[in-house]
This record gives sequence, C-alpha cells and structure tokens, in this order.
Amino acid sequence: MSKVFVNIGLSLDGYMAPEGMSLEHWATPEYESWGAKWGALMGWVLKQQYFRENLKFGPGGETGQVNDMLRHTMQRSGANILGKRMFEQGEISWPDEAPFHTPVFVLTHEKREPWVRPGGTTFYFVNDGAERALEQARAAAGDRDIRISGGANVIQQYLDMGVVDELEIALAPVLFGSGRRLFENQQASMPQFRIDKVVDTPDATHLRYVRA
Amino acid sequence: MSKVFVNIGLSLDGYMAPEGMSLEHWATPEYESWGAKWGALMGWVLKQQYFRENLKFGPGGETGQVNDMLRHTMQRSGANILGKRMFEQGEISWPDEAPFHTPVFVLTHEKREPWVRPGGTTFYFVNDGAERALEQARAAAGDRDIRISGGANVIQQYLDMGVVDELEIALAPVLFGSGRRLFENQQASMPQFRIDKVVDTPDATHLRYVRA
Repeated sequence: MSKVFVNIGLSLDGYMAPEGMSLEHWATPEYESWGAKWGALMGWVLKQQYFRENLKFGPGGETGQVNDMLRHTMQRSGANILGKRMFEQGEISWPDEAPFHTPVFVLTHEKREPWVRPGGTTFYFVNDGAERALEQARAAAGDRDIRISGGANVIQQYLDMGVVDELEIALAPVLFGSGRRLFENQQASMPQFRIDKVVDTPDATHLRYVRA
Repeated sequence: MSKVFVNIGLSLDGYMAPEGMSLEHWATPEYESWGAKWGALMGWVLKQQYFRENLKFGPGGETGQVNDMLRHTMQRSGANILGKRMFEQGEISWPDEAPFHTPVFVLTHEKREPWVRPGGTTFYFVNDGAERALEQARAAAGDRDIRISGGANVIQQYLDMGVVDELEIALAPVLFGSGRRLFENQQASMPQFRIDKVVDTPDATHLRYVRA
C-alpha cells in the first residue's frame, strides 16, 4: 500500500520557514533576513543537480548520495498535498513546469478549477478538508506514495490524524530564532517513530524516521 | 582556553523535558505520562555502563561508543552551571555522590552556603546572574571545559550571550507534543553553528555542533 510521507528541511531550532517569509514580503528577502535564512536552511538542496534541473536553475550541481535521495523522493511520489500558503508562494515562484510532476491536492477554501501545468503537474483545489484530500491523493497515487509537502500546519494536521508513515527531515545547522515551527499545537496522542536511517553530510543531517 | 558546551537529550519535536515534569508532580510520573516520556527521551543513556555507575543505578550496561562519549563528557568538564529548577529536581533525586564531580554553579535567587557533597561535587549558589556564574565557572574549571547543564532557560541565556562554543544534542525519536523547549525566546542575533560530528545509533542521533 502507498506510504504517506513528509520530506522537509528544518532548522536546528525547529523551524520550517523563517520569520518574514510570507507573500507580503516575497519581493524583499532582506526583510527580517528571510532570504538569507532560507538560503542557509536549503543550501544543501540548492546545489544538487536533480533539484537544479527540476527547478530550472540551470545545469551542473552535485550528483552524489544526496542527489540520489532527491531523485528517489520524486520518483516514489504519486501525489502531493499542499497547504494554501505554500501553494500561493509557489504559484509566483515555480517555473511553468511546476516541480511536482504529479497530481497536487491543495487544501484551501478557494473554489477553483484544476490547474494543469506542463510536465505532469495538475493542481486540484480541495475545499472539504485534510481527510478528503488524502483520499483523493491515495486514489491518484496508485502504487506510488503520497507526499505531505507542507507547510507546517498541514503536516501537523496529518500527524494528528495518525496517518504519516515516514518523516524525512534534513536538519540544517542554522538557528532562526523565530518563524514557523514544524512541531507545534500537536495533540498528546501523536504517533511515535523510530530512527530508520541517518545520512551525515556537512550541510545537513538527513534523518529518516518510520512509524514505531 | 576552556570551551563552553551544552550536552543534552532532546525530543524530535524539540523538548528537553515533557509537560508535567516538575517538583509538584515528581512523585507521580504517571501525571501527563511524564515518566514514560522522560524514559523514552533518556533511554539511550540509562543503559550505559558509565551513567549507571555514576548515578548508582547498579552494575552492568553498555560499554561502546556512546559510553565512551559519556565518559569523555564527564572527564572534560571542570565546572557545571545549572538552573534553579534543575537543581531542585536533582536535590531530591541524585545519590549522595551527586553526579557532577566538579564545582557546580546554580543560578538562583536563594542565598545559601556552598553545599559540599562526597565525590567532588560542591554546589555554589550564584545570586548575581548568568555572566557572573560563568566567570566563576571559568575560574573553577582551570584547563577543563564548562558545561551548561540546563535547564532550557539557562541554556537559552548562554546562547543569547553568544558564549556557547559547542552544542551536543542526543536527538531521541520521540514526540512529546508539549513541554519545555530547548529553543525558545531566542534573540535574533544568535551565534551560528556548523555540524562537527554525527553518531548514529538506534536509540538516539548524537549531533555535535561547533561555532561556525
């Protein structure tokens, strides 16, 4: 059966995004230094060949173990689930070929027809909640897996529902001090995980957890 | 020169201690399941030979790489700095031979004469702030290093002062959902760290960071 997984970058102090990284300040990455902080968080991925190719950043890039992990993550994904804020930020940032190449289910109150992008990504706007989005994602993913792409509040909802099978965290050695935390407002009865794999690199520690 | 270091256990969701782990509920570890959560957080250390011997838990225990790390941490420490709450919890929990074997500087408003314990631990009660406690700890430590033992708010103070040279975190694959966070209320200008070493074990991921 398809697995439900999370694969994100996290600051050492637990933030998925720095303070100030919002649509309002999208054009001013110097606001609260959000651009520099985001760069420090995601530096490890920005230099991977697979990521650069997927985001149309140009040729070149690293091709080692971390690049292989990125490719594997993409290839295993049969559907993505996104929050509204992450979608809105991506809508103004992604290339025309949005970097998912799967059906993407966006949790939103906005009513909107599916948005078909070149390269295999179609965004579906789901107005009836996280459980229904997961059902649709399961149907769309077939034998492949379902990635809960974020943001933090969407991941929190699926953790609380107890449906997340795997947590993959690239822990970057950066302290933000503030921002949007991954782990917050959780229910007491969260599922528990065990360590499955650790990949140690100078830029980030890649931690993989599976349900205990 | 002596290094200032932090060496702690942390839950995957960023907590140093679970909700309910307080003097008020010390005798009822079933309160908010704090005892079980603490056990899950610290399970890796409870089974090490060096830790068991130091806490008078009895003979036996693991003697591998993690045990060697514990011994090294103890041997490098020439002084410890503690918060008042951590001291009060320890005062009713530690064996007569308190597990520090160094001078220990307790940040507190309580005025109290030094408390000498067998085995080389003497607690000094410092009423004039974190900077003064660090000065005293430096003088006492000689060539050895100064451990900021906790709790979270004490570590936060020293991080904000920019004096922490090394952060050693045993990241346990447990989610608390609530409790006392390590990283909270930080100033925006925190020092930054780089990854120095990662030791991958089934029970915890031992992450060592040094100042960038």
